[in-house]
Amino acid sequence: MTVPETWVALPEGTGFGIDNLPLGVFLGGGGPGFRHGVAIGEHVLDLFGMTGLPVHRTRTLDPFLVAGPGAWRDLREQVTEWLTDDRHRTRVEPHLLRQDAVQLCRPIGVADYVDFYSSRAHAENVGRLFRPDTDPLPPNWRHLPIGYHGRAGTVQVSGTPVVRPCGQLGPPADGLPPFGPTRRLDFEAEVGFVVGAPSEPGNRVPVAAFPAHVFGVCLVNDWSARDLQAWEYVPLGPFLGKSFHTSMSPWIVPLAALEAARVPPPPRETELLPYLRDGDAPWGLDLTLEVRINGQLVSRPPFRDMYWTPAQQLAHLTVNGAALLTGELFASGTVSGAAPDQWGSLLELTANGAQPLTLADGSTRTFLEDGDTVRITASAPGPDGGRIGFGEVAGRVEPARQ
Amino acid sequence: MTVPETWVALPEGTGFGIDNLPLGVFLGGGGPGFRHGVAIGEHVLDLFGMTGLPVHRTRTLDPFLVAGPGAWRDLREQVTEWLTDDRHRTRVEPHLLRQDAVQLCRPIGVADYVDFYSSRAHAENVGRLFRPDTDPLPPNWRHLPIGYHGRAGTVQVSGTPVVRPCGQLGPPADGLPPFGPTRRLDFEAEVGFVVGAPSEPGNRVPVAAFPAHVFGVCLVNDWSARDLQAWEYVPLGPFLGKSFHTSMSPWIVPLAALEAARVPPPPRETELLPYLRDGDAPWGLDLTLEVRINGQLVSRPPFRDMYWTPAQQLAHLTVNGAALLTGELFASGTVSGAAPDQWGSLLELTANGAQPLTLADGSTRTFLEDGDTVRITASAPGPDGGRIGFGEVAGRVEPARQ
Repeated sequence: MTVPETWVALPEGTGFGIDNLPLGVFLGGGGPGFRHGVAIGEHVLDLFGMTGLPVHRTRTLDPFLVAGPGAWRDLREQVTEWLTDDRHRTRVEPHLLRQDAVQLCRPIGVADYVDFYSSRAHAENVGRLFRPDTDPLPPNWRHLPIGYHGRAGTVQVSGTPVVRPCGQLGPPADGLPPFGPTRRLDFEAEVGFVVGAPSEPGNRVPVAAFPAHVFGVCLVNDWSARDLQAWEYVPLGPFLGKSFHTSMSPWIVPLAALEAARVPPPPRETELLPYLRDGDAPWGLDLTLEVRINGQLVSRPPFRDMYWTPAQQLAHLTVNGAALLTGELFASGTVSGAAPDQWGSLLELTANGAQPLTLADGSTRTFLEDGDTVRITASAPGPDGGRIGFGEVAGRVEPARQ
Repeated sequence: MTVPETWVALPEGTGFGIDNLPLGVFLGGGGPGFRHGVAIGEHVLDLFGMTGLPVHRTRTLDPFLVAGPGAWRDLREQVTEWLTDDRHRTRVEPHLLRQDAVQLCRPIGVADYVDFYSSRAHAENVGRLFRPDTDPLPPNWRHLPIGYHGRAGTVQVSGTPVVRPCGQLGPPADGLPPFGPTRRLDFEAEVGFVVGAPSEPGNRVPVAAFPAHVFGVCLVNDWSARDLQAWEYVPLGPFLGKSFHTSMSPWIVPLAALEAARVPPPPRETELLPYLRDGDAPWGLDLTLEVRINGQLVSRPPFRDMYWTPAQQLAHLTVNGAALLTGELFASGTVSGAAPDQWGSLLELTANGAQPLTLADGSTRTFLEDGDTVRITASAPGPDGGRIGFGEVAGRVEPARQ
């Protein structure tokens, strides 16, 4: 496939080329209220400004996403034409706003938020730390993509400050459990998937229908308070250790931009039930994430090594007939590769705080400190040798409110 | 307190007297689209018809609830006046619709759905069945109200048929895990709490602020597939075993109607952290539930025995700074008393299927069969010796879709 040329001036190495065209929601730039936009280089194309359509002047992308793959494809073709055919330039240019002159917003309503646990290296690392006396992989792990529902209402757009949460920090030594600001605040580098087209209650969504329902991909930081989590999570799973804040990147990269990034998932270690079989065109994705603390690289998690693909996660999520809603988000779980410099959380990188991590500037971390900024970026192969960028999901830790 | 008399003809023993005035959303009755209504006896008072206010012509109660306790109180006073002062009768009567002539809808948006685990008898019963080799109460149970997030998008109004879910039924004996329709479909009789006024991210909601945020109370059936649940729930908690369907009653009984139902919770067995202390006016509530299968009483769970009150649940839910959203629902977890005829699930009533339950007609059940209807009702003491009713949450089991 040959990528058409755009007349928009693109900075060297941008991940937001004409082959990407991620969607987001923004405020400002001289227009009215929340509008939908497409990222191109350092700019946002104002879709409401270009089209005048009310569907592109809403608080989230949901009213557009609900229309489904035909509408997504039509918009992509239209935007590609506007940005590649020089005849449109005069009309389009007034609606190209600088990204640094607008405020990017949470792009979806987050009707529900599901988090999976699909990295084998991560599950094994966590199992060894939290359940040292048992097989690190739970017996169900190879048979189904383990997941749980998180708090949809506290999913925030990148850049929203993360207030250090308070809570019960562990079992009581004598009397009351220790209480206060978490001492083990962590990040989890994840990849998120945005549901556009809903499904009917009672109907399964097969693996092959993944692109009929999922619009695109974003980056997620599933902030975690490890002390709260360890004390609370048996038997019903994570709750306050995760529910204080989850960050998502503002730009949703369409699946249509990721054809060149598709890869087979790792070999299966057990036979899978039919509803989880990948078929001929699996949805492994060759994203490489980079995690930085205060600008210093601490990990490069490889999404291609994830054991369960997002298409399998979706098939599992709906096999019981649970309906999909427009604007729901499901995330991969922490992305960790086999090598230590590919681990996607401080829990793993510091052996739950036992082995401090040394940053490039010589400072050390066990868990996050107030003032730390965690920034996760990613890129994937694009068509024609290019790169598809995902922007970033970033957040700065603020002190607890006592 | 003396309850004023209403001019509306009330059936003997109605739980929807002038001292209750629960809110709901309905369709039909000759009016336009979704409207808000108040239940009185066998009727619904059409609030949009009475007021013409757009806020009462919305798909959910959320746009009204967000206004907070002052608005809730004003409406309650206004409706009480309309229904007790004979001078309003001519104007009001045209807007009193028979409940059986309208369609009751899911009354809230369910921005998030949290389910707790607050009955000590239930937690012990389940612990003995699922984790027989350990203390039935997890070590954290007496120190915090254990909870988790459920699937908000599959919370349905009472009466919506419940399709038997499919899924992985357990570990593989040899090769693949068994797969198919659940063989252990269960109910869980619960009480739900509807958040009206939101809270700010990063702020805690103290126990005493419970009535400043929670509008009212409903009944919940947290349908559960025990075979799916047992296989999937370690380590991240329930997922597909619960996410296929949760039922809620259509009428939200205001906290303002439940002053006479307030009781102290059971004595604490351990000292609690300050944020969980009840103070002088705890929110134990003396609801008695009744569970019927195909019309036959199987249990009378006593809500007054719940170890954790909803005010404590709310304080715990927000102690990490998680914001409350208008229209979110949190539920108590299965309500079970100490006696076997007070247990709120078939898991408990049949010892996980080992001891079939005999119904009044002589038929037996281990778990639910296709065609079974589960109906949960409740009542509580009202002012002046009256009873506050909660209507019902009911659902009929339909066969799996293969």
